[in-house]
Amino acid sequence: MSDTPISRFPIPTLKDLPEDIQQRIKEVNEKAGFIPNIFLALAHRPAEFRAFFAYHDALMDKETPGLNLAEREMIVVVTSARNQCQYCVIAHGAVLRIRAKNPLIADQLATNYRKADITERQTVMLDYALKVSRQAEKINEQDTAILHEHGFDDDDIWDIGAISAFFGLSNRIVNMSSIRTNDEFYLMGRVPR
Amino acid sequence: MSDTPISRFPIPTLKDLPEDIQQRIKEVNEKAGFIPNIFLALAHRPAEFRAFFAYHDALMDKETPGLNLAEREMIVVVTSARNQCQYCVIAHGAVLRIRAKNPLIADQLATNYRKADITERQTVMLDYALKVSRQAEKINEQDTAILHEHGFDDDDIWDIGAISAFFGLSNRIVNMSSIRTNDEFYLMGRVPR
Amino acid sequence: MSDTPISRFPIPTLKDLPEDIQQRIKEVNEKAGFIPNIFLALAHRPAEFRAFFAYHDALMDKETPGLNLAEREMIVVVTSARNQCQYCVIAHGAVLRIRAKNPLIADQLATNYRKADITERQTVMLDYALKVSRQAEKINEQDTAILHEHGFDDDDIWDIGAISAFFGLSNRIVNMSSIRTNDEFYLMGRVPR
Amino acid sequence: MSDTPISRFPIPTLKDLPEDIQQRIKEVNEKAGFIPNIFLALAHRPAEFRAFFAYHDALMDKETPGLNLAEREMIVVVTSARNQCQYCVIAHGAVLRIRAKNPLIADQLATNYRKADITERQTVMLDYALKVSRQAEKINEQDTAILHEHGFDDDDIWDIGAISAFFGLSNRIVNMSSIRTNDEFYLMGRVPR
Amino acid sequence: MSDTPISRFPIPTLKDLPEDIQQRIKEVNEKAGFIPNIFLALAHRPAEFRAFFAYHDALMDKETPGLNLAEREMIVVVTSARNQCQYCVIAHGAVLRIRAKNPLIADQLATNYRKADITERQTVMLDYALKVSRQAEKINEQDTAILHEHGFDDDDIWDIGAISAFFGLSNRIVNMSSIRTNDEFYLMGRVPR
Amino acid sequence: MSDTPISRFPIPTLKDLPEDIQQRIKEVNEKAGFIPNIFLALAHRPAEFRAFFAYHDALMDKETPGLNLAEREMIVVVTSARNQCQYCVIAHGAVLRIRAKNPLIADQLATNYRKADITERQTVMLDYALKVSRQAEKINEQDTAILHEHGFDDDDIWDIGAISAFFGLSNRIVNMSSIRTNDEFYLMGRVPR
Repeated sequence: MSDTPISRFPIPTLKDLPEDIQQRIKEVNEKAGFIPNIFLALAHRPAEFRAFFAYHDALMDKETPGLNLAEREMIVVVTSARNQCQYCVIAHGAVLRIRAKNPLIADQLATNYRKADITERQTVMLDYALKVSRQAEKINEQDTAILHEHGFDDDDIWDIGAISAFFGLSNRIVNMSSIRTNDEFYLMGRVPR
Repeated sequence: MSDTPISRFPIPTLKDLPEDIQQRIKEVNEKAGFIPNIFLALAHRPAEFRAFFAYHDALMDKETPGLNLAEREMIVVVTSARNQCQYCVIAHGAVLRIRAKNPLIADQLATNYRKADITERQTVMLDYALKVSRQAEKINEQDTAILHEHGFDDDDIWDIGAISAFFGLSNRIVNMSSIRTNDEFYLMGRVPR
Repeated sequence: MSDTPISRFPIPTLKDLPEDIQQRIKEVNEKAGFIPNIFLALAHRPAEFRAFFAYHDALMDKETPGLNLAEREMIVVVTSARNQCQYCVIAHGAVLRIRAKNPLIADQLATNYRKADITERQTVMLDYALKVSRQAEKINEQDTAILHEHGFDDDDIWDIGAISAFFGLSNRIVNMSSIRTNDEFYLMGRVPR
Repeated sequence: MSDTPISRFPIPTLKDLPEDIQQRIKEVNEKAGFIPNIFLALAHRPAEFRAFFAYHDALMDKETPGLNLAEREMIVVVTSARNQCQYCVIAHGAVLRIRAKNPLIADQLATNYRKADITERQTVMLDYALKVSRQAEKINEQDTAILHEHGFDDDDIWDIGAISAFFGLSNRIVNMSSIRTNDEFYLMGRVPR
Repeated sequence: MSDTPISRFPIPTLKDLPEDIQQRIKEVNEKAGFIPNIFLALAHRPAEFRAFFAYHDALMDKETPGLNLAEREMIVVVTSARNQCQYCVIAHGAVLRIRAKNPLIADQLATNYRKADITERQTVMLDYALKVSRQAEKINEQDTAILHEHGFDDDDIWDIGAISAFFGLSNRIVNMSSIRTNDEFYLMGRVPR
Repeated sequence: MSDTPISRFPIPTLKDLPEDIQQRIKEVNEKAGFIPNIFLALAHRPAEFRAFFAYHDALMDKETPGLNLAEREMIVVVTSARNQCQYCVIAHGAVLRIRAKNPLIADQLATNYRKADITERQTVMLDYALKVSRQAEKINEQDTAILHEHGFDDDDIWDIGAISAFFGLSNRIVNMSSIRTNDEFYLMGRVPR
């Protein structure tokens, strides 16, 4: 498997990249112990790389009373599974297991979130995320009202929808590029440390 | 999680079951180390239980030159993922990892088989399986011709289609019953023993 | 038309078949006056043949207070029409006409069950059967509640769903094999005897 | 069943209708032996009635070297079945059986035309008719080229597409009005006279 | 652009056409200042031409208390956009702008009527029109009840559904013929005269 | 219409915004003569605002030998129309008319790009963009090969796919927020200056 390409588009040599992108990749490598392929696959387009991760961080490195870190990952896993994005489901499934301290939740959500060990509030959150992902043209005030009833405020609703929309972009980039999932993600968060 | 029901339909007490069904359950328990929930969830209907597992065994406990055990499980994982059947994807994903001696293959196939580490021949096999699963009314002799070109004979084609059709039944029973996946399946085949 | 093949897969010679399968075919021939092609088309796989008809009989040769014989056939006709299974619609349409003593009902159900001469209770039954057939992943407790309101108990619900699931398998086998409908079925139950 | 309404919209009294419409209904009654409900259901709108039947006759009461009367009815049956129009499938199925002198063809086409006793040329014709019916926005010159290869000229192609388009209108009017199929149609053309 | 054909089917010479069709075309030319291509594209089939425009006029050249001229055009624009019919959206979008005296409304409705500057009553009207256009087989009495609640009577409901059905025919004819939109339509009703 | 809200989410006061965002809005206002609502609707989230427009500019303010400015806008119009995004179709339709110096092209592409006045090369470009938008999971090397045959290199392919993916994000944000299209866009580029 070591010979399988990371992407169908070019992967630049690290030392040829702009300083800030080298720095970002160095940091994630130190934190994760490996370089997630999405960083390498986007690096041939520095401006897009910067915008992508700035957008990502604004939505995902954030915890609010209405939406914790694990719930943000749940949205990623469910919408990416529906979009059949291998990288996003497996990599963010790993992050979700760790953040939720739950080794089962990612596989449950990836196949059928309606049967997962989640709360009704989380189901409502995922219904909305999936509607934004697949039928955004039909979103209406009834959808918002149900979210309000379950304690989500308008800031949360924006977050849920924006995460779904952003990973819709990510899913499409990954699928058009055949970005390969790092082997390391598959087992992360499955066994107690 | 221990309180979550196994099925929305009744689960009979083991000792009240017909002798042959008790025996079958005892055997699988000895082999796997636990009782997969599908056995408990179908047991309230002994005649259907017997037919279901007889059908299953006829298609799955079988290895031919054209279709090995791992490939049969691949068909189950891919079609069940498309039908959003949590139990089938996770349980048969476990079996697939073991049979293929590959810890990555099940998660790859479950999200997008077009991006998985499989051969072109296996891709053609899965294309056919998925067409039987989702658009059987359009199956035609061109589909069969492509399979022949890749070395599948008519017996293999029947197997591929019948496995897809049988697990289509299984997927529907599981989803209508909300049959819970045993926790044991999630980690099976992921770490070297 | 007599030269049209019964199936794209092999049809074994009756006398070469296992005893029990010969016996089963002999019985249906005596009862119907001809051998329905599904028996011939499955016979090249004796173990699958036995499982298929055992499953079929467990669900269809059964009458309960909640679900009579004609209603079981209604489920077959409606779900098979949606799956575009010629054999199932025409053969079971014939059985339905006879069991319901109604020469019009099968054609009505096969094209649009929402416009058929059936009760509201039967419409609810067919809504559920069709959801199991086409969107089983979305079945939820609201679906079950509507069935309960119309007097179906959980045993009936299992039957409705299991019949839909089983004929989903049958529809796929028939379509992938191009199993031909016997000419005899077309007129059965249309004219008073 | 005699009490079931013919349409959810008003059915005018025959003698209150404009002379020409009374005349048309009288003629069809004499020819068929009964009044097909579509005539009664459209009569409350005389101008639309006249346009509808003028359009119908221009396309259906016509036989050309490229497209005989039976083939025109095949198009109606196949596209109406896909649109789930009970009246059109059953009434035109009857006409088709008579025109094709084939008691089986209508039921075959209504469930899955890909498995019907028709020629390859007729399959190509029905592929085009169905594409006009369901995906007209994607019709392109490749579709036309295939028809030409099978001996259809541009006049035939217009006829095939226009019949599909016209019955698309008819299917929608029937479904929105719940126009009931006359009992007489079900058996027509099934038994030799 | 002047060399682009009006239709993939033949366009007859005006003076060779039947008198009444020449007359009709002359009238529309005088009124509009140009000949809309739909008249030329249908003229090679005089009987169909007459039926088409008779049907059109019966539904569109009509104003009732429940449904004014602009609202009839709204139905055309929304259903034709969903059917991806360039001619119908652009030509009837022009007429709508003029009839509604609103330069924005056509573009809003063509992309997403749920976000357009229309009343709730008009949204309900368009929901029904679109359901007739895309899922007529599922129309039921609940749909009608909502329309009644918003002040539409049964005559209005017929009009809404029939306009949707008629333009479904028109959309299919246009798409199968690649009928070109006249350049004149694009700007009509956009700038105050 | 002046009272219609710009978005269902909050619109901050300009002078309360971070300096760089005020600056960006000032610049677009000077260039366009008005503030496009998307700038106001995203401003309540400064970090996302910055990432969004950085991403946008990286893909859209760029002209390459393989993909000119007008072609980039074509991709936006076609994919946004399919996603039913009113703001994107109307605003970018305006930009497209200006960049292509063609007053007809935007309306043609928004309803059915297969019937628009574009080259075969542009059709192939839009086929790929739409596949990324709606079925990215099925993108394969055959899609890429067709683009290569028409003179697109891998950099162009990335651009086409990335524009489609980015506006998929934009379409979802707009639809979930009901961002209103500025009246100014409707007429831009339609009349010669």
